[in-house]
Parts: sequence; C-alpha cells; structure tokens
Amino acid sequence: MNNLLRDRDGWSMDNCSIARTFEIIGQRSAILVLREAFFGARRFDEFARRAGVGEPAIATRLKELTADGLLERMPYQEAGQRTRYEYRLTMKGRALLPIITALRDWGDTWAADPAGPPLRAVHRDCEAPVHARLVCDHGHDVAPGELEMQAGPGLIEAS
Amino acid sequence: MNNLLRDRDGWSMDNCSIARTFEIIGQRSAILVLREAFFGARRFDEFARRAGVGEPAIATRLKELTADGLLERMPYQEAGQRTRYEYRLTMKGRALLPIITALRDWGDTWAADPAGPPLRAVHRDCEAPVHARLVCDHGHDVAPGELEMQAGPGLIEAS
Repeated sequence: MNNLLRDRDGWSMDNCSIARTFEIIGQRSAILVLREAFFGARRFDEFARRAGVGEPAIATRLKELTADGLLERMPYQEAGQRTRYEYRLTMKGRALLPIITALRDWGDTWAADPAGPPLRAVHRDCEAPVHARLVCDHGHDVAPGELEMQAGPGLIEAS
Repeated sequence: MNNLLRDRDGWSMDNCSIARTFEIIGQRSAILVLREAFFGARRFDEFARRAGVGEPAIATRLKELTADGLLERMPYQEAGQRTRYEYRLTMKGRALLPIITALRDWGDTWAADPAGPPLRAVHRDCEAPVHARLVCDHGHDVAPGELEMQAGPGLIEAS
C-alpha cells in the first residue's frame, strides 16, 4: 500500500470516476440494453425481445442512454410505415466495451453453470480468447499488487 | 458482425455471465464497498466512513459480499475490547479489479470534472498509467471491431 492509500481519510471520493460511471450505466436494465447494443440490436423491439426486460423499462433506458450520449437515435422508415427510430452506440458508448468484457470475464470464471459460459469472445484475427486485462501504457501486464494509486489533478482533500 | 450475432434470436441469454456478475456486485453501495476494500479498508468503520453510504447498507453489503465469497471475515481484538471482525478481499474478490479499473477508466475519460479525475492508477515498476484493455491470449491488443463472439460450451438455444 502506497502513501496515498495509507492516508485514505485525507482525501475525498466525492468526484469518484467509478461512482460516476455507475450513475450512468449502473441499472441492471441499462447493462442488458448495452449488451444487446454490442450484440447488434438497433430497434426497440430487438432490445425488448433480447434484453428480457419489460418494454417500459427499455423505453426509459433507451431515452436515458441517448440523453447521456451513449446511444444515438437515427430515423428509419419501412415501406408504408411511419418513421421510427433506431439506436446505435456512439464512440462514448463503444468505449464501455472493456467494462462489459470485464463483467463477462468475471462471470465466466466465477458464476457460470457447470456446463460452462454461453459465449466465448475471441480475437477475429487469431481466434485466441479475449479478456479485459490490466496493462500499462508501456505495454506491461500489471498484476494487482503492482497497481499504485497516485493523486490525480482533481484530487479533493477531505474537509 | 459474425454468424452467431446475426442469429441473435436463435439463442438465449438466460445464463448470461454479465447479468450474473451484475446480480452479485450491481448495487451502487456494493461497488463503493469494493472500491474501499481495494483501497485498503478492512474494518466496518473504515467502510462506513469512506464509502459515503449509511451504516445499515454497509452492514448488509459486507454480509452479502462475504456470503458470496468476495470478502472473508476475520476476527480481531484490540486490548480491552470485545472481538470484532475485519473483511479482506478473497481471490474471487480481487479478481474484480479489471471491472473496477474499467469503470474508473471510463469515468476518468467521459465523466470527470474539468479539473480532471481524482486519481491516477500507475504501474509501480515503470510509473506508466494502467488501464483495463482488451487483450487476447496471444498477447495482441484487440480493437472493438476485432472482437468476435462464438458459441461457448453453455450456449442455450432459444425455446
């Protein structure tokens, strides 16, 4: 444990990035809608059918995720029908993939049925399984014990 | 989009690993308790003071996270006091670090104040920032478009 963590009561987590992310995607139905968006769903009925969540919750989540800039709403029209809207992941939304992958990894390892997990995520080019791993910007794999927390520019001292 | 995702309505996500992980750690107060456990909290009053959550919720979360095997409860005794318990992350709990890191990464990038995020996670050995990245077992960085979902051993066909 480094000095910053030894003095944990000396600083606040009022602006915690983990908590802020959770405010935006921390509802179960939001995670399931995002999962299906990554799986390719775009239309309301696809989200409703595949996420296994009631239609009112789907409608609310699509609205919120669009307002938060994770999805963008695009009009489409089929012959003889009124204009409808489909929802696509924005860059901000696609940036959630490491979170979704890390959630899946952990569940695959610690919460799967004896038969095994339903899906495998692989690298298209080499077919090797893909995981969310801790890597530093110098390209080193980082073991949990090698992770050090330092003060960032926005650190707030405890009042 | 590969064949499996093109046939998304042909299989069920009833045994989804993402949803299962979320069942276990998907409450806001659980995430905050786990954050503080990674920051070094062990004792009830440390969790209560640092997570910014009411004591009854902390007590419930510590009980649930222990029952789910993410924390282990160890007795300790200070001179002249009754025996109390502290909580330490198990291997199963420490395996959540990529999830916590991915949540922090996203919030640092997309939800921080203009001043910047409160913390920096760095690699102890080289001081380079650490992120949760998609990496395949052959060691390649994987761009989102290079991720392919294949059927796993537990895939359930839609009924």
